Amino acid sequence: MGKLLIVGTVAFDAIETPFGKTDKILGGAATFIGLAASQFDVDAAIVSVVGEDFPKEYLDLLEEKNIDISAIEIVKGGKTFYWKGKYHNDLNSRDTLATELNVLADFSPVVPENYKNSEVVMLGNLHPSVQKSVIEQMETKPKLIVLDTMNFWMDHALDELLDVIKHVDVITINDEEARQLTNEYSLVKAAAAIHKLGPQYVVIKKGEHGALLFRDDNVFFAPALPLEEVFDPTGAGDTFAGGFAGYLAETKNVSFNNMKSAIIHGSNLASFCVEKFGTERMKGLERKEVTKRLMQFKELTQFDIELQ
Amino acid sequence: MGKLLIVGTVAFDAIETPFGKTDKILGGAATFIGLAASQFDVDAAIVSVVGEDFPKEYLDLLEEKNIDISAIEIVKGGKTFYWKGKYHNDLNSRDTLATELNVLADFSPVVPENYKNSEVVMLGNLHPSVQKSVIEQMETKPKLIVLDTMNFWMDHALDELLDVIKHVDVITINDEEARQLTNEYSLVKAAAAIHKLGPQYVVIKKGEHGALLFRDDNVFFAPALPLEEVFDPTGAGDTFAGGFAGYLAETKNVSFNNMKSAIIHGSNLASFCVEKFGTERMKGLERKEVTKRLMQFKELTQFDIELQ
Repeated sequence: MGKLLIVGTVAFDAIETPFGKTDKILGGAATFIGLAASQFDVDAAIVSVVGEDFPKEYLDLLEEKNIDISAIEIVKGGKTFYWKGKYHNDLNSRDTLATELNVLADFSPVVPENYKNSEVVMLGNLHPSVQKSVIEQMETKPKLIVLDTMNFWMDHALDELLDVIKHVDVITINDEEARQLTNEYSLVKAAAAIHKLGPQYVVIKKGEHGALLFRDDNVFFAPALPLEEVFDPTGAGDTFAGGFAGYLAETKNVSFNNMKSAIIHGSNLASFCVEKFGTERMKGLERKEVTKRLMQFKELTQFDIELQ
Repeated sequence: MGKLLIVGTVAFDAIETPFGKTDKILGGAATFIGLAASQFDVDAAIVSVVGEDFPKEYLDLLEEKNIDISAIEIVKGGKTFYWKGKYHNDLNSRDTLATELNVLADFSPVVPENYKNSEVVMLGNLHPSVQKSVIEQMETKPKLIVLDTMNFWMDHALDELLDVIKHVDVITINDEEARQLTNEYSLVKAAAAIHKLGPQYVVIKKGEHGALLFRDDNVFFAPALPLEEVFDPTGAGDTFAGGFAGYLAETKNVSFNNMKSAIIHGSNLASFCVEKFGTERMKGLERKEVTKRLMQFKELTQFDIELQ
C-alpha cells in the first residue's frame, strides 16, 4: 500500500451559495484532499494544525476514513483557521467575507517519522515556505511531489513560491492563476512556461470546464461531468487533487498514461463534492457510486474513430 | 455518396482581432459549412444569395471543393451581405461594427430539384422563417435536419424560431444562447428543456471549452484542441457544424454513437479554422493534416481505466 503524505489546512468554512448558507462547518484543503484520497487503497496521513475549538467529531470522521491524524497538531487555547465566503449566482466566482488565520499563522509542520518515506506528497494550498519545509523533511525522495497553490501567494510570496515550485513534479493551478504566473494568455504557452519553472507535469484546472494535463508536448483533457446542479463548489479543486494524488499513491505508477487515469479519478470525485455543502457528500461516498460515475465519464468522453 | 443540402449566408466579412485586421474577405455561414463538409465524401450543395459585387473567384473556390453552387443566386445590381466585427483581447467576445443585409433582406431560398431528397439538411444561421421554408421544400424526409441559430433570432423572431425548432432533429447553439432560450443556467437542464421544444439531439457549443451532445440522458463531450494561439474565431461554429453534418452525410448513420464521431470531426475541423483569418486555413486544408490532428484528439481525450 502506497504512502501518501498530505499537508494543508484543516479548518472551519462558512459558505453561502444561491441555494443556502451554512454556519461553521468542516473545511480545509487537507480535509478535502484526505476524504478524496480515502477512496483509494493508500496509507494516508494529514499534517496540519487546528485549535482547541475544533470538534473531536471532525477528527473522528477523518480517522474513520483510515487517515492518520496523529500529525494534526491541536494548539491549546488556539482557534482554528476560519474562512467565510459567498458565491455569486453563476458559482464561478466568490467573495471572501472573512479569513481568520488563527493557529495557522504560526504553523510549522512536522512530518511524522513513518511518513518521511512516502511515495507521494500532496502539498495543499499553504504558504510556499511551509510547503517547502515539508519537502525538506522527507528522508527518501518521493516518487511524486504534487503542489497546489493559488493567486494569493503569487501576489504576496512570489519568490518563495518560485522557489518551492522548482522542487515539485506536478503543479495544480487554475487557468487564471496559470495566466497570472506566466503572463501568457494561451494555456498551452502558460503550461510550457511553467514547465521551465520546474514541474515536469502541469495540471490546469478550469472548474466546470474541466482540467488539462500537460507534459512537454503531450496534453490530456478531462471534462467536468455535466451536472444538473452545482450546489457548492467549495473543496472541488482539493477533492480533484486528492483523487489525483490518491490514485497515484495506490498505483505507484507515475507514467503519463497513468496520470491520465488519475486526472479522470480526480474529476470524478470532484463531481460528487459539489453536490452538497462542504464535505457532506464526500463523507458518506461509497465505492460503488464512484465506480458507476466513472462509467459515465467513459461514456462522456470515449469515442471510436478508425484512423487509416 | 450522401447528399448534403446547406442553407446559409455566403458573404463578406471584415475582421479585426488583436493580431491584425482584414478588408472585406470571403465569409458567411454556408461558406464555412461547405468548406468543412468538403472534407468528406459527400454530394453537397449550397443554397444562398449574393450580389453582383461578389467575386467570381470566391464562387470558383467553392466549386473547386466539389460543392454544387448552382443554387447560389446572384442578384443583378445587388450587394452581398456584409458583416464587420472586432474581437476583444480574449477572443471570446466581439463587437459587431457593421451589418448590411443587402440582398439577404429579400432572400427566398429555392431548393434545387436534385437536392430535395438530401439525406442531411444543414440549416445555417438565418431567419427562422427562411430555414422553415427550406424544410417545406424537401420531397423526401431527410435522415437528419440540423439547425444552427443564434440569440439575435431569440430576441427578434422567437415565435418563428420555436416553430422551426419543432421540425429539426439536431439544434446547435452556444451555451449562453441555450441559457437564454430556456431560462435554465445548468446546461443539463437547458438541454432537457430544448429536447421538449422538438430536437432529439441538442449540441451546445462552448467555444474554446468544447461542445456537448445531449440525447435524453446520454451526454457526450468533445474538447476544443488546446492551441498555442487562436488567431481568428470567425466561422469556427459553422466549421464545427459543417464537419458534423458532412461526416453524418458521408456515413448516413445517425446513431448516437456515430454522432459522437461527428462531434469530434467537427471539433477537429474547427481547430484549423481558427488558425488564420476567415477561410484562409480551410481552403487549402489537406486530408492528411486532418487525420493527423484527429490522432491528437484521441490522445487528448482517450484513457484506459478498468472498471470492475
